[in-house]
Amino acid sequence: MPPAPPFPNATVGEVTPQRVDFEEPLPLACGRAFGPYHLMIETYGELNAARDNAVLICHALNASHHVAGVYADQANSEGWWDNMVGPGKPVDTNRFFVVGVNNLGSCFGSTGPMDLHPATGKPYGADFPVVTVEDWVDAQVRVADHLGIERFAAVMGGSLGGMQALAWTIRHPQRVAHALVIAAAPNLSAQNIAFNEVARAAIMTDPEFHAGHFYDAAVKPRRGLRVARMIGHITYLSDDQMAEKFGRQLRNGLRYTFEPEFQIESYLRYQGDKFSEYFDANTYLRITKALDYFDPAAATGGDLRRALEAARASFLVVAFTTDWRFSPQRSREIVKALIDNRRDVSYAEIDAPHGHDAFLLDDARYHALVRAYFDRIAAELSS
Amino acid sequence: MPPAPPFPNATVGEVTPQRVDFEEPLPLACGRAFGPYHLMIETYGELNAARDNAVLICHALNASHHVAGVYADQANSEGWWDNMVGPGKPVDTNRFFVVGVNNLGSCFGSTGPMDLHPATGKPYGADFPVVTVEDWVDAQVRVADHLGIERFAAVMGGSLGGMQALAWTIRHPQRVAHALVIAAAPNLSAQNIAFNEVARAAIMTDPEFHAGHFYDAAVKPRRGLRVARMIGHITYLSDDQMAEKFGRQLRNGLRYTFEPEFQIESYLRYQGDKFSEYFDANTYLRITKALDYFDPAAATGGDLRRALEAARASFLVVAFTTDWRFSPQRSREIVKALIDNRRDVSYAEIDAPHGHDAFLLDDARYHALVRAYFDRIAAELSS
Repeated sequence: MPPAPPFPNATVGEVTPQRVDFEEPLPLACGRAFGPYHLMIETYGELNAARDNAVLICHALNASHHVAGVYADQANSEGWWDNMVGPGKPVDTNRFFVVGVNNLGSCFGSTGPMDLHPATGKPYGADFPVVTVEDWVDAQVRVADHLGIERFAAVMGGSLGGMQALAWTIRHPQRVAHALVIAAAPNLSAQNIAFNEVARAAIMTDPEFHAGHFYDAAVKPRRGLRVARMIGHITYLSDDQMAEKFGRQLRNGLRYTFEPEFQIESYLRYQGDKFSEYFDANTYLRITKALDYFDPAAATGGDLRRALEAARASFLVVAFTTDWRFSPQRSREIVKALIDNRRDVSYAEIDAPHGHDAFLLDDARYHALVRAYFDRIAAELSS
Repeated sequence: MPPAPPFPNATVGEVTPQRVDFEEPLPLACGRAFGPYHLMIETYGELNAARDNAVLICHALNASHHVAGVYADQANSEGWWDNMVGPGKPVDTNRFFVVGVNNLGSCFGSTGPMDLHPATGKPYGADFPVVTVEDWVDAQVRVADHLGIERFAAVMGGSLGGMQALAWTIRHPQRVAHALVIAAAPNLSAQNIAFNEVARAAIMTDPEFHAGHFYDAAVKPRRGLRVARMIGHITYLSDDQMAEKFGRQLRNGLRYTFEPEFQIESYLRYQGDKFSEYFDANTYLRITKALDYFDPAAATGGDLRRALEAARASFLVVAFTTDWRFSPQRSREIVKALIDNRRDVSYAEIDAPHGHDAFLLDDARYHALVRAYFDRIAAELSS
């Protein structure tokens, strides 16, 4: 093991993304075989001689391969899970070789809808396939092969990332020792799908969407993306947290106009504006669709226990009490199905006020739990 | 009392709306005095000789003066609360003189944003004032004066209608004997405001909104209204009800396209399309703003007890267990403030699966409760 760094909670420091090219087309759930394509990845720490200390981090809607560290030339460029991954952090890069992968169809560097279709020389746009959680997992397997990782010590993710971790255990049971499934659900409820559909409706009816081929028109459906993100934000925060953070606070008293008057209005508009600048509409549509489609129990007539029969991993399942997007009740469905299969599963329900967003935040109990779980994983390593 | 009708739960039958004109401008909360204007009303039953059997029904977002009965020349034209109001129904038109009023700024016949501004000869559009619950109540007082009603036996409403009933008791305590405040709240939470703001953002960023002056352009912001209504619908239904009614049911299997695939998607799109055909965008903006602004305790430093000190009415407050838009907890805040003022208040929490929409539905326990409460009101009448 390398010597401990001078600061126990230091960042991994400056990082450099790598592009991995895949010539062989990837068979997708929709029936198409897609390729050639490339994925962006980042790695932190070092793969040990036994190649058994690798941890895969799967991202959710709005994130990427840039999990930890910073970019040399960019201010405020910390990775999205920098509080979780680093030297001395819960996922300790002094012990583990951590891999972040940007999923296929993303807008952060992996092949996505804005890339050029080799056959036409124009951006894919609407012709980019609808991808699924299982497609992403299969693409991640190829990344593992590329890195010479036969079996991950852990596959880990929150929200949609947690769904990928769960899918790994079903689809590639021999290649994952532990799965950390955080703030996730075994599938989306009708209400979850409804929120996604409203977001998609906002994007697809934006006149600048151009049926998905807006790149050619040199515009983007900013209005639709903005509304989509505002809706998303409501579901990420708990009602209580919103009440505490914003309540009915006004910016400058009642004005009797339609300018933002309440602080919550300014907050949402700001979040929506920011997001619409950097996110891609076609990517948003596809990621919400992957969420809607995810339902491992669909293959077993709705029986989640049977769907998880193939899983061989040990599990840590974590839920947050005020998460109303994927409530603890949904996590408990996963736990019950695992227990019914006599799988090794630990479950924690963290009493945090932050709603779904809690999985990204630096909560002491949550981080202590993940740290303890990784201590256990480390104890199982060959070196 | 008139003889009982042949069918105990008969409809009030064919009804005719009336237009009431007001020359005197109405002072509004925003500081403007608005007028002349007109309001549409309907009445059912007969005002008794003592003029003390009048019941005012206040409407919520999507409704009007057309509370009960049908229009002679129109199929499926039942009033929006026809299951509640009629001969032999919980609000029995054999005993009570029931008044429905369409609020100022609506798009169902009362003076609203699509009407012509007398000064310009063009539709008001964006120049129509931002109106409040209190403005509506003051306008309703003038309707009472017009009808020769000094004091209502009851003022009644659900959701935003319940807020009007509550405002009546504070603003015109001598003019209301009983208030029925159903599925309401003493103000909107940050999350409630957030949903309204997203709906407004969808409308206001629709290119066909034209800053509220779309009538001149002979277009309407259908896309924005559609998204706004879809968002609204999610908040009207309970998660459980959506799960039971739609679940993850597919229409024709997974298609890997962005056409509606899940039943919930079709349902929302249908509701959004329908609404965008008949509702006015400027009205929608104003009604959501009236909801956001409603906060009687703002005048007393957030102290709802003090805000309700002036009230003299007796109250029936009703909440529905699965209503997450205005949860029972919010109704209980009203009840507590009334009890702390030693007001006469009955409170019921109906265990119904239908979420916020429950106040409009024909639930046996709910209707029995309202019926019993009106029996009590009837017993107090002079004739």
